[in-house]
Amino acid sequence: MSARILIVDDTPSSVKMLAAKLTNEYYEVLTADAGRAALKAVEEDAPDLVLLDVMMPGIDGFDVCQQIKQNPRTTHIPVVMITALGGREDRVRGLEAGADDFLTKPVDDTTLFARVRSLVRLKRMLDQWHLREETSERLGFRTDTVDVIDGGTGAHIILVDDSTVQKSNIQEILGADSHRITVIDDYDASGKIVDIGGDVIVISLSTDSDAPLRLASRLRSLEPTRQVPILLIGDTEDMDYFIKALELGVNDYLVRPIDEHELIARVRTQVRRKRYQDRLQANLMQHLSMALTDSLTGLHNRRYLTTHLESVMGRMPEQDKPVSLLMIDIDHFKKVNDTYGHAAGDEVLFEVGQRILRNIRGFDLAVRYGGEEFVVEMPDTPVEVALGVADRLCETMANEPVRISGSKDKISVTLSIGVAESRDGGETADELLKRADEALYEAKRAGRNRVIPTPPKTARDAPEARPG
Amino acid sequence: MSARILIVDDTPSSVKMLAAKLTNEYYEVLTADAGRAALKAVEEDAPDLVLLDVMMPGIDGFDVCQQIKQNPRTTHIPVVMITALGGREDRVRGLEAGADDFLTKPVDDTTLFARVRSLVRLKRMLDQWHLREETSERLGFRTDTVDVIDGGTGAHIILVDDSTVQKSNIQEILGADSHRITVIDDYDASGKIVDIGGDVIVISLSTDSDAPLRLASRLRSLEPTRQVPILLIGDTEDMDYFIKALELGVNDYLVRPIDEHELIARVRTQVRRKRYQDRLQANLMQHLSMALTDSLTGLHNRRYLTTHLESVMGRMPEQDKPVSLLMIDIDHFKKVNDTYGHAAGDEVLFEVGQRILRNIRGFDLAVRYGGEEFVVEMPDTPVEVALGVADRLCETMANEPVRISGSKDKISVTLSIGVAESRDGGETADELLKRADEALYEAKRAGRNRVIPTPPKTARDAPEARPG
Repeated sequence: MSARILIVDDTPSSVKMLAAKLTNEYYEVLTADAGRAALKAVEEDAPDLVLLDVMMPGIDGFDVCQQIKQNPRTTHIPVVMITALGGREDRVRGLEAGADDFLTKPVDDTTLFARVRSLVRLKRMLDQWHLREETSERLGFRTDTVDVIDGGTGAHIILVDDSTVQKSNIQEILGADSHRITVIDDYDASGKIVDIGGDVIVISLSTDSDAPLRLASRLRSLEPTRQVPILLIGDTEDMDYFIKALELGVNDYLVRPIDEHELIARVRTQVRRKRYQDRLQANLMQHLSMALTDSLTGLHNRRYLTTHLESVMGRMPEQDKPVSLLMIDIDHFKKVNDTYGHAAGDEVLFEVGQRILRNIRGFDLAVRYGGEEFVVEMPDTPVEVALGVADRLCETMANEPVRISGSKDKISVTLSIGVAESRDGGETADELLKRADEALYEAKRAGRNRVIPTPPKTARDAPEARPG
Repeated sequence: MSARILIVDDTPSSVKMLAAKLTNEYYEVLTADAGRAALKAVEEDAPDLVLLDVMMPGIDGFDVCQQIKQNPRTTHIPVVMITALGGREDRVRGLEAGADDFLTKPVDDTTLFARVRSLVRLKRMLDQWHLREETSERLGFRTDTVDVIDGGTGAHIILVDDSTVQKSNIQEILGADSHRITVIDDYDASGKIVDIGGDVIVISLSTDSDAPLRLASRLRSLEPTRQVPILLIGDTEDMDYFIKALELGVNDYLVRPIDEHELIARVRTQVRRKRYQDRLQANLMQHLSMALTDSLTGLHNRRYLTTHLESVMGRMPEQDKPVSLLMIDIDHFKKVNDTYGHAAGDEVLFEVGQRILRNIRGFDLAVRYGGEEFVVEMPDTPVEVALGVADRLCETMANEPVRISGSKDKISVTLSIGVAESRDGGETADELLKRADEALYEAKRAGRNRVIPTPPKTARDAPEARPG
């Protein structure tokens, strides 16, 4: 996949060589010769990947990396640090600054391109989430700033390894970084891994077989583990294996002998990435569900009711089961607002919502229909049962005044409830709502604080009205 | 990237050979030996790609393909048909049935893997959208069934070609399929293509240079064209070029001599894919914005106001500009509902929203605050100006009764409006709303149908109350 790559290096010859390699593979190349210029390019030109030299005058590579990763607008852009040979300490420092990987000078082409392809693919995927987050912001959602400086510790790591000595070593290192570790010693256990559902999967190569690679591949093709980071641990001789693994979607690898700090840093990077993505996903879910819930009471809203009721009533002709509806209004609610203020009025609305929830069954649907009106949708429920629920609700409101927080006031509130049942699928959701509303109107007219059923559309004896 | 691939073929030896090739590259392989079994596997095992033989007893390959593509749950799964040599007619029929490509037996490995990689990448991207659509459905959104049987005609095609004869040929063929075509004869014109923004980009190779490939690559790295399908047209000798192009993110290619039907079918496939994705994207946008709008009036809702007002007031200390707020309530609205019914009440609410919109400026924000209450947020506006707007609004409601649809009723409605201004950033959004609410309460107490300002928090002479 083509991509835009930013090369940051103060040595013109290094830039030129790397740029030629990448251009030859049809990547778009941008360059910057110093830290400040790099940060500007990252903000303005939206590269898909940054190849970043460590040693630069002014702001050095570590600082640049850290600033990219701590900026919510750029944190999803992968950074590969380019270090001098043997600088193990530099590498760990780079990873701790948030780098996704490092490459050693002179840069080996196969490793470079395998890593670039893998990170560009990751970036494309994160782009989709990132873009969506920006869309939410533009629409006007309050987006909780994603905590980009997550430590990356305290995660659940699944370690797949069948060598006893080695796995207890890894377990000890990661355990010391506050991770919880589940060890699996079977490279065929993809099903088990799916069931466990960890944050990062570490696969340690201990055999010559391709079982570990098969496992990684299977985890990538299974829906639940598709986005879970995978880190391989192997030997220098396994380089071809690593490169193949990156192609298959493995996220990172570590070469033995295991450097404790490097293992910790690489696992943290994957944990952070996973959490970042999880958070963006959770934000989206939250924003979507806001469209269907009432923010004051936490109940579903009218929009949700309409869709839901239509779908329930659409299934009625086949199922021959009744649906009942309660249309609930708080009596003289305006007076509550006028006497005690809007804040107290809001508390009453909230409390009515809570009492409705406590008095219905799990499969009933409680909705704030608007203002001081609520609706309860009761599938598979004949009107007699619905009337029982309505009566109970009416009584509990009338008998227990609502206590207002931070005051001694207790507000007496009563409800009027209209009840309607639909049985044969011969009417629309709108018609059923209208009949429940008419019954509510009758309850108001008859003096409030009571439940009134409406006769069902099919000719049946309607149960009698009774005060609540 | 690893993936799950379903091979459908009734000849065991064909299945075995293809399965071995794919397994060797670490793909997960599923198999089905007949059409019905294939459809079952597609529904239940969620493959990332289907390799589909044409000739099978029972339901043949064309039917299987069509059924996969017409099912909203599986339409995003790519299908490659495997045809006998030379069956040009079969190929077009396959494309018309919705196939993403066909391969000719015996299957050439390089072509196979290039195509598989390209389609799996596409699938992964569509998965994200598809998953989101399913999430919306699960949350309870009414998702308009995406029209999967879109004809794929009538799109805007950008044709890049510098050969006069050839381009007029292509133009004629695609024009006959109701596409609008913009021709560009410069392979460096990525900027122009971004500006034009077509549905599909067709790049016809007419030189030996790599300019067309550079163009494709640039289009893939630019944000606006990243998801726009690209189709290459070239010669049999360009096969290496095509394979490289697929790796870079080009979606499809066509080999000369141009078969009219094949060109039309391949372009249609890309148009359909683009539209499918656009629609899923639009659905998401719509669902997200629902969370911030009031469905009855189309105005923004209280949730949006809170976030917006907080951000406007947060900027106040630097900007030293006042913000004014109108808190508007419909007088005796309950009576409207009781006298004319809820439907008429809803019409009144809608009409009040419309009149508010007509009386404010483009940068003011109109909000349905709840029930029969509205708020107008006026940035950079001193209270004197806000009072003028409020007076006008009050008058227009009092002077022009609301006409109710399908009836001769005209309902006389008046408004009470409280106005508050915040100037020095010394109060919160909540406090400003509360002050506007108090002014509204004063307007009600003073007899309704009037505008009352509240004195600003900083000591200033408050303008006098006046009836609206």
